[in-house]
Amino acid sequence: MTWHLARRTALMNPSSIREILKVTERPGIVSLAGGLPSTDAFPVEAVREASARVLRDTPHAALQYAASEGLPELREWVAAHLRDTGMRVDASQVLITTGSQQGLDLLGKVLVDAGSRVAVEEPTYLGALQAFGVFEPEWTTVPCDGDGPLPDGLASARGARLLYALPNFQNPSGRCISAPRREALVAAAQAIGLPIVEDNPYGELWYDEPPPAPLAALWPEGVVYLGSFSKVLAPGLRLGYVVAPPVLGQKLLQAKQAADLHTPGFNQRIVLDILRTDLLSRHLPAVRALYKTQRDAMAEALRRHLPDGCRWETPRGGMFFWVELPAGTDAAALLPHAVERGVAFVPGNAFFAGAGNPATMRLSFVTSTPDQIDRGVRLLADTLRTRP
Amino acid sequence: MTWHLARRTALMNPSSIREILKVTERPGIVSLAGGLPSTDAFPVEAVREASARVLRDTPHAALQYAASEGLPELREWVAAHLRDTGMRVDASQVLITTGSQQGLDLLGKVLVDAGSRVAVEEPTYLGALQAFGVFEPEWTTVPCDGDGPLPDGLASARGARLLYALPNFQNPSGRCISAPRREALVAAAQAIGLPIVEDNPYGELWYDEPPPAPLAALWPEGVVYLGSFSKVLAPGLRLGYVVAPPVLGQKLLQAKQAADLHTPGFNQRIVLDILRTDLLSRHLPAVRALYKTQRDAMAEALRRHLPDGCRWETPRGGMFFWVELPAGTDAAALLPHAVERGVAFVPGNAFFAGAGNPATMRLSFVTSTPDQIDRGVRLLADTLRTRP
Repeated sequence: MTWHLARRTALMNPSSIREILKVTERPGIVSLAGGLPSTDAFPVEAVREASARVLRDTPHAALQYAASEGLPELREWVAAHLRDTGMRVDASQVLITTGSQQGLDLLGKVLVDAGSRVAVEEPTYLGALQAFGVFEPEWTTVPCDGDGPLPDGLASARGARLLYALPNFQNPSGRCISAPRREALVAAAQAIGLPIVEDNPYGELWYDEPPPAPLAALWPEGVVYLGSFSKVLAPGLRLGYVVAPPVLGQKLLQAKQAADLHTPGFNQRIVLDILRTDLLSRHLPAVRALYKTQRDAMAEALRRHLPDGCRWETPRGGMFFWVELPAGTDAAALLPHAVERGVAFVPGNAFFAGAGNPATMRLSFVTSTPDQIDRGVRLLADTLRTRP
Repeated sequence: MTWHLARRTALMNPSSIREILKVTERPGIVSLAGGLPSTDAFPVEAVREASARVLRDTPHAALQYAASEGLPELREWVAAHLRDTGMRVDASQVLITTGSQQGLDLLGKVLVDAGSRVAVEEPTYLGALQAFGVFEPEWTTVPCDGDGPLPDGLASARGARLLYALPNFQNPSGRCISAPRREALVAAAQAIGLPIVEDNPYGELWYDEPPPAPLAALWPEGVVYLGSFSKVLAPGLRLGYVVAPPVLGQKLLQAKQAADLHTPGFNQRIVLDILRTDLLSRHLPAVRALYKTQRDAMAEALRRHLPDGCRWETPRGGMFFWVELPAGTDAAALLPHAVERGVAFVPGNAFFAGAGNPATMRLSFVTSTPDQIDRGVRLLADTLRTRP
C-alpha cells in the first residue's frame, strides 16, 4: 500500500535534537533544555477546588459540547484583563483556543497561502515556525538587535501576510522590546500595511518591572494578539486565546470549528472559576519570586563559570537565557558532549527561519534549583573549554 | 488596514442554517436538530471521582506539558480495546487527539494538497467536509445505497488521496455498513490503492446488535481509524484518537505538535482513570437502553405522523434518523416554518459534498424525551402538510 502524502509533509521531520534531548530525562542530568514551567508554580489546590465546584454546580454543561467561540464569561474576563493593559477589546473579539499554539495554527489557516510570505524575528519561537510552516510560506527574517526587530528592517517584509513577534521576554532570546521600539515598530508596520501577530505567553513573568503596553494597544486594527494560561496557571489544561480585529474573527471561528469543534469546556470552566477567586493576584507574585531567584542564580552562574568569548544579556522576565558562544562554535555538535558530562541545553539553530547562528544556545532556568543551575552551567563551561 | 486572507478562507462561510437553529435553543421548541449526546448519558459521578483522584495522585504531571503522542497508558488502553474488535494495533500507532475532529484536521494536513481529490460518502459528515475543506481538495462523491458506498462506485475515486467513510450508524444517514459490503468495499479500495479514513464515533451506540468488525481490521495497512470518547463518556473533555499505519504516524505526530502541542493531560488522565474502573461495562448498556427507547419512540412517531411519500429506515444505532421527503420538497425552505410551529431539524443538503438532495432532513432522537419526540414529529408532519 502506497500513501500519497501532502507536499507539506516533506517539511515535517523528526528533530535530531529532540532525540538527543530524550536521554536528558534520566536522573542525574541537569536539563537546562526544557521549555516547561516549574511544577512548583502550579496552583494545584486551586485547580482541585475549582474542579470540584464545576462538577458540583454545572456538571452537564461542563461535559457537553460547547460553543466554538469559547465560554462567554471567560471571553469577558479575557477582554477585561486586556483592557487593563491598554488594549481596546470587546469580548466578541476573543476566541478561546486549545493552548495559544492552536491560535498560531488557526492564523496560519486564515492568513497563509502556499508561497506567501511570513516574516519572523531573528531568532524566533520554534513552535511558530512549525505552526505556520504547515501552510508552506516563504520565510522572511527581519533583522533584530537586543531590543527586537529593527524598524528599518521591516522594509524587507513588505507584502508579507504577517510579522510574527513575541515582544515580552521572547522564547528563545529572552529580550523584551522597549516602549519606544514598540512605537517605532508599529509605525513602520503601519506604513507598509504589514499585519502583526503578537504572541504573549510570558508577559506576566516579569522579575524587575512589567513590560510595556502590547503592540495591539498601539494598533488595534493591525495586530492579532495571542495569550495563554499555560505560564500563569498550568499548561496541561491547554488554554489560550486569540484576540483579532473583527474582520478576521468569523474566519478564525470557522477554522476553529473545523480544527477541534471547541476547546474543552470543563477546562474553560475550571480556569474561569479560578480567575473569579482572584487567585492570580496572590499566585503571580509568588511565581515571579520563585523564578526571579532562579533567574538570578543563572545570571550569577554564567558570570562565574562561562569562558571568555561568551555573551548574554540577563532577561528581565520569562524563562530563558540566550547565550552567544565564541565564533566558530557549533552548539549542536557540542550537545552530545555536554549530555555526556551531565547537562543539556537547546542549540540555538532550531530557532531561526533562515540560516541561523550555530554558535548560540538557549538555557532554561525555571525547572532547576539554584544549586542545579550552578552545577549545570559549570559542566557546560567545562564542555566548552574542552570541546573537540 | 487591509488584511490579505488565505485563498481557503473563501470557503469558510457562516452557515445560514446555523443562524436559524440558534433560535431553537429557546424553551418550548422541540429540537430534533442537535448533534449532541444526551446529558443524561454523562457519567458525572465517575468524572467527579476520577478528577479528584488525578489531582490527588498525579497533580503535577496532569497539569504540566505532556507528550504530543498522548499518555502512554491511555494509548495502551485504546490499542487493547481495538484489538478486541479484531484490529491489529500496537500502542505506538495510537495518537491521542483533541476530539476526533482534530484527527480529521491532522489527516487533512498530512494527506491533502490543494487540488488533490478526497472521496466521501453520499451523504457524509459535515465536520469532515469542513476539516478536509480547509486543505482545498476537489471532492468526489461515491454513490451509496442503504448499505453504504457501492464497491463498483469506487472506480470514480481512483487516484483520490483518501475515501472518508463512517461505517457505523453514520451521521447523518444512520446507516450501518453490513459485513459483506465492508469486505467488498475494502477489496475494491485495495484493487485501486485507495486509502480509507474510517471514522467511528458511534460504534458503541448499537441498540439491536453490535456492528461488524471495522474496515481497519480487514485492511490494516490501508485504513486510518478514528475513535472518540465523546459519545461513550462525554464530549466536553474533547478526547479522541487516530490509529494510523506506521508510515503515517511520524507525520501525524508532527502535525499534532504544530496544531496544539498535545491534548490536555488532565483530561487524558481523567478518562484513563475512568476506563480503569471498568465503568464502561456498566455505563454503556445504560446509555444504549436510554437511546434505544428514544430511537423506538421516534420510529413510532414517524410511522404514526409523517404523511405519505416520506421514506426512512430505522437506524440500528447512533443518534439520527434520515428522512427523505416527497420529491420537490425543499427542507431548508421548510425549516423556518417548522421552527415557527415549534420544531427544528437539520436540512439534509449540508451533508453533501456535491449537489445534494434538498428533499432530505436529519432528525436526532437522543436529546428529547419520547413525549417530546412524538410532539416534535407531529409538528413536523403538520408543517409538511401545509407547506407553502
